[in-house]
Amino acid sequence: MRIVLDAFGGDKAPLEIVKGAVAAVKNLSVDITLTGNKSCLEKIFAENSLSLEKIELVHAEDVITMEDDPVKAVRRKTDSSLVIAMKLLAEGKADAFVGATNTGAVLTAATLIVGRVKGVKRPALSPIIPSAKGPFMLIDCGANVECKSEYLIQFAQMGALYMKKILNIQNPRVGLLNNGTEEHKGTALQIETYSKLKESPVNFVGNVEANSLMYGACDVIVTDGYTGNILLKSIEGTSKMIMNALKDMFYSSFSSKLAALILKNKIKSMAKGFDAKEYGGVPLLGISKPVIKAHGSSDAKAIENAIKQAVNFCNSGMIETMEKEFNKTEE
Amino acid sequence: MRIVLDAFGGDKAPLEIVKGAVAAVKNLSVDITLTGNKSCLEKIFAENSLSLEKIELVHAEDVITMEDDPVKAVRRKTDSSLVIAMKLLAEGKADAFVGATNTGAVLTAATLIVGRVKGVKRPALSPIIPSAKGPFMLIDCGANVECKSEYLIQFAQMGALYMKKILNIQNPRVGLLNNGTEEHKGTALQIETYSKLKESPVNFVGNVEANSLMYGACDVIVTDGYTGNILLKSIEGTSKMIMNALKDMFYSSFSSKLAALILKNKIKSMAKGFDAKEYGGVPLLGISKPVIKAHGSSDAKAIENAIKQAVNFCNSGMIETMEKEFNKTEE
Repeated sequence: MRIVLDAFGGDKAPLEIVKGAVAAVKNLSVDITLTGNKSCLEKIFAENSLSLEKIELVHAEDVITMEDDPVKAVRRKTDSSLVIAMKLLAEGKADAFVGATNTGAVLTAATLIVGRVKGVKRPALSPIIPSAKGPFMLIDCGANVECKSEYLIQFAQMGALYMKKILNIQNPRVGLLNNGTEEHKGTALQIETYSKLKESPVNFVGNVEANSLMYGACDVIVTDGYTGNILLKSIEGTSKMIMNALKDMFYSSFSSKLAALILKNKIKSMAKGFDAKEYGGVPLLGISKPVIKAHGSSDAKAIENAIKQAVNFCNSGMIETMEKEFNKTEE
Repeated sequence: MRIVLDAFGGDKAPLEIVKGAVAAVKNLSVDITLTGNKSCLEKIFAENSLSLEKIELVHAEDVITMEDDPVKAVRRKTDSSLVIAMKLLAEGKADAFVGATNTGAVLTAATLIVGRVKGVKRPALSPIIPSAKGPFMLIDCGANVECKSEYLIQFAQMGALYMKKILNIQNPRVGLLNNGTEEHKGTALQIETYSKLKESPVNFVGNVEANSLMYGACDVIVTDGYTGNILLKSIEGTSKMIMNALKDMFYSSFSSKLAALILKNKIKSMAKGFDAKEYGGVPLLGISKPVIKAHGSSDAKAIENAIKQAVNFCNSGMIETMEKEFNKTEE
């Protein structure tokens, strides 16, 4: 199995991407292709005494940055490390993609260059989010700002399949994000989606409110990309604010520093429990090959986690199942 | 000034509502009317040796519960403590309403019995939410699930006015909740609202993402009731999850209990900083009299805070300003 990585995507690229790739070769026995400026990459391997065993370097002259307009950049920067990586994936020269690149650009490149699974109307960005009762998948979190109910039904199916095949959750519970649990709640989109989900083959547990998500209300929460983005960012913002306030509290006096010392390991393990990066990157579901968008701030460990996730995705047979399922429903 | 309270609304009613009313009379020199079962209320005053000075009791036979359907309950339970309180407000026998009653029922009763400010298209539920950089107002958080851009413009105006007149923020910064900061982001509703807000008299600071809200991006965040509800509940759910994990951590061993003892006061003040109840209740903006919806779990202190907020609301002259502003724009 070969995973292609955009070595120049992300805040800590290329060094941390390279280190993550080397760790993955060692720990996961996988082959890696790194795209990006070849002489720069060779220098990093040499300077850090890293082994190139099972790692192929493919030169790319250009880079897509976080500031680039996604659609324009993918169309124009055809020599960029992202576009070249996606082409290798499309041509079958790699089995999966991992990159901490600009989210919009990954989405655009995957859709235009690799393409969707036949029968899938819209691909979705589907992060795995930690809660007090284990992780849940949020689908969509921003790929599709305006949605029709038929997209949401497919999100439900794809999300349930991923949680079953990759996270080994039997019969994943699917909820519809809403402003109340009663059947009539929400806008026209939620009301229509509710009635369709009730008739669908997924294990639909009804409307779910944003607060119950944190207490294990479902394994997959379905929503449009606009609302999903608001949900994801408010969870991230609130966690960050409280964790920072906690840090300030610990640093505020001598006695509180002493308390922090006592709690050091416990705080670390608590913070780890709330860190989405522990689950790897964000899968882009609906694309015809596994595509994992790693967090922009990914370090080597996060990249290695994302590669592991890509390997599991490849091994799961999920895409083959999707091809069968969606073409059955299409007929 | 006289504030009318639904003495039978909320999880801790009637005892905590009564205690909050007595504290308000003492600390805020305001007159109070309590609606609810009169003999039951008299018994509470007697048993707890509470003074009835400046407090009037108005009998109500019935109660609207959290389980009641809001619209049906307001129409049918005409003898309920909520409906009777709203009637007193509508008739000018009180200057403002405070209640920890069923949110939907407060909204329905206020709209049907008290009515909107002339020119206001939709009233909005507008909680004040703590952030790392002071509080902001979220408008709307659930009164109007489906919105038109013209409603959102009015929400922006009402929110800015409240933050200026009641929270003394000069020139409040108004943001539009969106899935990115660029002008073209969001659904058709956000795109249309963005261009209208740019032309409006409010101090519009552009699109604001949910995570930046926690770091003081704006003083008023404008959105439809569906999205606002998701935002509010995800902030509440995430805070609760982390604070509970923290509590579990502190109770997990002897040494961590010791650390908790050292940090006791600091933890309390941190938790207080994230407690929306510190800012009183949720104002229902757009109703022709001040209406404050206190949190369902309000204790005496929260009720006293909400009464204080109602007094400030009355003194601010905000409703008179709204009457002028909205009728000017209407012409």
